[in-house]
Amino acid sequence: MKVTLRTDVLTNNNKAAMFNRELFHDTKTLVINLMSSPGAGKTTLLEETVKNLSGKYRIAVIEGDLATERDADRIRAMGAKAVQINTHGGCHLDARMVAAALGEFDLDVIDILFIENVGNLVCPSGYDLGQSHKVAVLSVPEGNDKIPKYPQMFMRTELVLLNKIDLLPYLDFSMDEARKDLMEINPKSALFPLSARTQEGLHNWFTWLEGAFKRCVRQ
Amino acid sequence: MKVTLRTDVLTNNNKAAMFNRELFHDTKTLVINLMSSPGAGKTTLLEETVKNLSGKYRIAVIEGDLATERDADRIRAMGAKAVQINTHGGCHLDARMVAAALGEFDLDVIDILFIENVGNLVCPSGYDLGQSHKVAVLSVPEGNDKIPKYPQMFMRTELVLLNKIDLLPYLDFSMDEARKDLMEINPKSALFPLSARTQEGLHNWFTWLEGAFKRCVRQ
Repeated sequence: MKVTLRTDVLTNNNKAAMFNRELFHDTKTLVINLMSSPGAGKTTLLEETVKNLSGKYRIAVIEGDLATERDADRIRAMGAKAVQINTHGGCHLDARMVAAALGEFDLDVIDILFIENVGNLVCPSGYDLGQSHKVAVLSVPEGNDKIPKYPQMFMRTELVLLNKIDLLPYLDFSMDEARKDLMEINPKSALFPLSARTQEGLHNWFTWLEGAFKRCVRQ
Repeated sequence: MKVTLRTDVLTNNNKAAMFNRELFHDTKTLVINLMSSPGAGKTTLLEETVKNLSGKYRIAVIEGDLATERDADRIRAMGAKAVQINTHGGCHLDARMVAAALGEFDLDVIDILFIENVGNLVCPSGYDLGQSHKVAVLSVPEGNDKIPKYPQMFMRTELVLLNKIDLLPYLDFSMDEARKDLMEINPKSALFPLSARTQEGLHNWFTWLEGAFKRCVRQ
């Protein structure tokens, strides 16, 4: 019974994800599903991404949160369109919530759509939203043991942005351990150390996005 | 259908929680359900708590994680008994998992049992484990906007330990905003700023625990 229901939930989600994916493919929209713990710095990273890349790409954002419009307001203040989804206690976005939010966008005039998932290192990783790529943000203050402790997230993401490296001098964080653990769990994954606050290392993320966008429009 | 099942899940959980609560009451065990985002510092806080209070109280710990035995090993290294629950992807502990783990303890010789929940600021708050008190740990690097953004957690906990205050000089964190938001969401809640790393402010937590233990044995 429990298994059947879980299967149903995922089947319904996967149908909606397939719908989203076809739409993104047809409109050649690069869609990034950004996931992390609460407070790892997803919104700050998106603010900097909009600031640095909006001259080159038309960027929009879907914000997922349990409550408040705060993150969407921060993105709008940077000049990009943002739609806020409030899950009212729900622990992750699902593909149907995203499909509903897409009604507020004209994807023909959007190059890159970021979906900032609910801050949660567990549940969001299990739900396909139809995105082009799943990207995890891990932050230095969380500690380098989070990759083996939350393996489902890191085995399902192809890129890990290690944020807040400006705090490395004040914390015990082993970059070697983080890289080693990530390579064990997901050898195809890349890890980019950066700081959205100081902008250090952000160029690697921007270069990765440019490559992903080129591949997306060539399809 | 969906609502029925959710109700069943919670009813089953609540039955197990009631069983746990009676057991804790009969054995006069103070039980703290400690919840936070991943990497907020729950295990470091427990290491320091064991180190400072184990001369006075008999302390044991149940550790909840998706994977690995790392946190239980850290607690054992401090000299306290620890049992690790691995949820294998599950996003929270439930009362039945705790009931099963209790088989490994003799509660008659334990004064304080800490249950370190899975690192997740969303799901754990909805599940009663039979604990005496729910305590949330929030850490400075997560930002002061987490209280209004994750209201379900903070309206269900009676104490918020604001950890990593040693990082305040390097971050934009408004203590006033955090206190104001907490008072709006949960006026009965207390907030103790502290640093498990530098030990600053830990005495408030220890004093709170002593008071809670006294009330527990008086029942």
